[in-house]
Amino acid sequence: MNMYDLIVKKRRGGELTEEEISWMVEGFTKEDIPDYQMSAMMMAICFVGMTKEETKHLTLSMAKSGDMLDLSGIHGIKVDKHSTGGVGDKTSLVLGPLVASLGVPVAKMSGRGLGHTGGTIDKLESFQGFRTDLPTEQFIRNVNTIHIALAGQTANLAPADKKLYALRDVTGTVEQMSLIASSIMSKKLAAGSDAIVLDVKTGDGAFMKTQENAEDLAKEMVDIGKLAGKDICAVVSDMDQPLGYAVGNALEVKEAIATLKGEGPRDLEELVLTLGSQMVYRAKKSDSVESARRKLEGALHNGMAFSKFLEWVEAQGGDIRQAKDVSLLPCAAYQTEVFSFEDGYVENIDTEDIGRIALLLGGGRETKESQIDLSVGLVLRKKKGDPVQKGESIAVIHANDKEKSEKAVQRLLQAYHISANCPEKEPLIKMIIE
Amino acid sequence: MNMYDLIVKKRRGGELTEEEISWMVEGFTKEDIPDYQMSAMMMAICFVGMTKEETKHLTLSMAKSGDMLDLSGIHGIKVDKHSTGGVGDKTSLVLGPLVASLGVPVAKMSGRGLGHTGGTIDKLESFQGFRTDLPTEQFIRNVNTIHIALAGQTANLAPADKKLYALRDVTGTVEQMSLIASSIMSKKLAAGSDAIVLDVKTGDGAFMKTQENAEDLAKEMVDIGKLAGKDICAVVSDMDQPLGYAVGNALEVKEAIATLKGEGPRDLEELVLTLGSQMVYRAKKSDSVESARRKLEGALHNGMAFSKFLEWVEAQGGDIRQAKDVSLLPCAAYQTEVFSFEDGYVENIDTEDIGRIALLLGGGRETKESQIDLSVGLVLRKKKGDPVQKGESIAVIHANDKEKSEKAVQRLLQAYHISANCPEKEPLIKMIIE
Repeated sequence: MNMYDLIVKKRRGGELTEEEISWMVEGFTKEDIPDYQMSAMMMAICFVGMTKEETKHLTLSMAKSGDMLDLSGIHGIKVDKHSTGGVGDKTSLVLGPLVASLGVPVAKMSGRGLGHTGGTIDKLESFQGFRTDLPTEQFIRNVNTIHIALAGQTANLAPADKKLYALRDVTGTVEQMSLIASSIMSKKLAAGSDAIVLDVKTGDGAFMKTQENAEDLAKEMVDIGKLAGKDICAVVSDMDQPLGYAVGNALEVKEAIATLKGEGPRDLEELVLTLGSQMVYRAKKSDSVESARRKLEGALHNGMAFSKFLEWVEAQGGDIRQAKDVSLLPCAAYQTEVFSFEDGYVENIDTEDIGRIALLLGGGRETKESQIDLSVGLVLRKKKGDPVQKGESIAVIHANDKEKSEKAVQRLLQAYHISANCPEKEPLIKMIIE
Repeated sequence: MNMYDLIVKKRRGGELTEEEISWMVEGFTKEDIPDYQMSAMMMAICFVGMTKEETKHLTLSMAKSGDMLDLSGIHGIKVDKHSTGGVGDKTSLVLGPLVASLGVPVAKMSGRGLGHTGGTIDKLESFQGFRTDLPTEQFIRNVNTIHIALAGQTANLAPADKKLYALRDVTGTVEQMSLIASSIMSKKLAAGSDAIVLDVKTGDGAFMKTQENAEDLAKEMVDIGKLAGKDICAVVSDMDQPLGYAVGNALEVKEAIATLKGEGPRDLEELVLTLGSQMVYRAKKSDSVESARRKLEGALHNGMAFSKFLEWVEAQGGDIRQAKDVSLLPCAAYQTEVFSFEDGYVENIDTEDIGRIALLLGGGRETKESQIDLSVGLVLRKKKGDPVQKGESIAVIHANDKEKSEKAVQRLLQAYHISANCPEKEPLIKMIIE
């Protein structure tokens, strides 16, 4: 077998076999196959595509390229949730303790990652003393006793994907649906859960800008999951405006706590209930998705979900006084209200720009080495379709630097589009694919 | 400007500008742009193609990446001839002295190259003492006095093409018409002639297997030449069987000498007259292509062409006794006749296989380091459409190794297809594009 022949086969529209794909992934991981051949292959795939079988083989080969986690020490059906990411997405912070409060085992491995804000791990470090370097034994013990634990990703999960993504990132071959699906799913399959619930976001603040693309990606991932023998579903949800109102690490923690107490923004609560009911149902902690949802609504409003959150933070060494009194969480030096210059309705919010503002304020990482400022960010006061009066506040900027704050105010005004007519409301949940 | 953006632009079907292409070629030559990005670009071009303008810019950028030869010291209109190559192609050996005998300046730079047999330089080294390392001054003096000189390619012509071709060769991106045309023409433009006559071969023994592809390539090259301001034409000629009868270095020299005396195979003479008349006409040594052809026919049959050949070999230090008595040329130890097992007509000859037999016998280079055996090869006795009787000889193998000779006999029998019906004759000259 040689890579040249495989490239030519794919370029001519052929289908690679399981043997060919696993040979290619192994060779690439061991650096026997040079980058310049792999990038040519990736570009050919951008044009020719991959069949379902090819996508499955690529995904499984990449999953097997490193550690395959063994979660068999954890009792019950392990359900993993994955989001394709968006602006203001604090879903995991609410969803974890919420479904754990109904006895679903939540064993979350999380990365720090690059982005507008930090990852779940960064956000939870808003609590003093919160440890994410749990030894494996304690991690498993916590899940078995309180049903929830979070750890930084220490295992060598799907190194082939890591290497391949880095190459695609610099050779213009990222935007191919099967390759994207394969990249996400390889890590999910290596992470060893029994069931997977995917949150595929669509809109200006998401990687998939159109609903059609988001649906395609969701279907591809569900197909891969099924072919790999997993119980899986995907929720396609709106990301044409930030989720909830808060964007920024500690600010999002505050909003998550409010939601865990049944006092959160409607869209965030709705998404959490939709994803959560799928998780509870698939973990066999309820007979139907509907009854799961009713139980989750109960847990949000009867204190169970918030209690579980406190239990979780405490179990990982975090200071729960900050959870009980959120004014003790990191707080930025300057809060600046942003006032509208116009009367009308919020017609549109440039969501990607909102993310960039959070990054500009210091809330995210531009490179792996960047330090995150947990306190900064912004809190929207108006969302799509809300009426606005001239001089009324549309958002608050939380900053530790005057100059950055002023810049953020300007950019925020540009990101808001006020119009005379009230826009039609888009549904938050577009569809569920299973 | 950055390569990532250019790759994405091309992948999405965009047209690269002159500035972008020249930036890319320069960056790649200087190794600022890594191979893995260039191979992704090449693969995108395989799918999206290039416009005429893009192809011109790529060709000129590659031509300018190294030395641009200055032939202004040579009097008259310099006409370069280039063949895309085939089995038994000894055209240059005849064409050079033939057109030089009519006063056309022939300043030939030639490489050694890889292939079934050696290049023109290797073949001429069949003459003891023949020097191809002429200093530039002597090279130009020879062209100005006797109208012909040949030198090994010492100049650094189109290094960007060399580097790019090596990359395409291992990434499955060779077969794209505009890239092939651009690669050939970049070297031709750097070689500094005033006019160019191309011989584009088509058929089993050629790089272009179908006439359609050969025509496309010919048109692309003629377009590039014209856009670059050159007087240019392309002859599309048949390579579905070897040209002439001889395949092998010294064997081809013998056949070339016979042709220079008007005693060569009809197909070789026809091709030489077709290409030569275009060269003579474009060098303004005749008023029309037809009158050029008549003059060339005269030169072949009145001794002028052969005299010029002797003059040329002598001027470069070669032993002309070997040209006058070809039995003094390198000669293999064993000549083995290959007899037919069937009655009928030669329906088809696997021409690429004939080339491989010559290579197997030691007549060509498999790697740059290989030593060429000038004496070995094969001489066909039968060509397409010829009647054959059982037990009649169809070819002679010239070998210096008994074992190789036996292998060659077996493979030659497999390469010949004898049938009861006489196949229709294909014309040698398919078309002339200008």
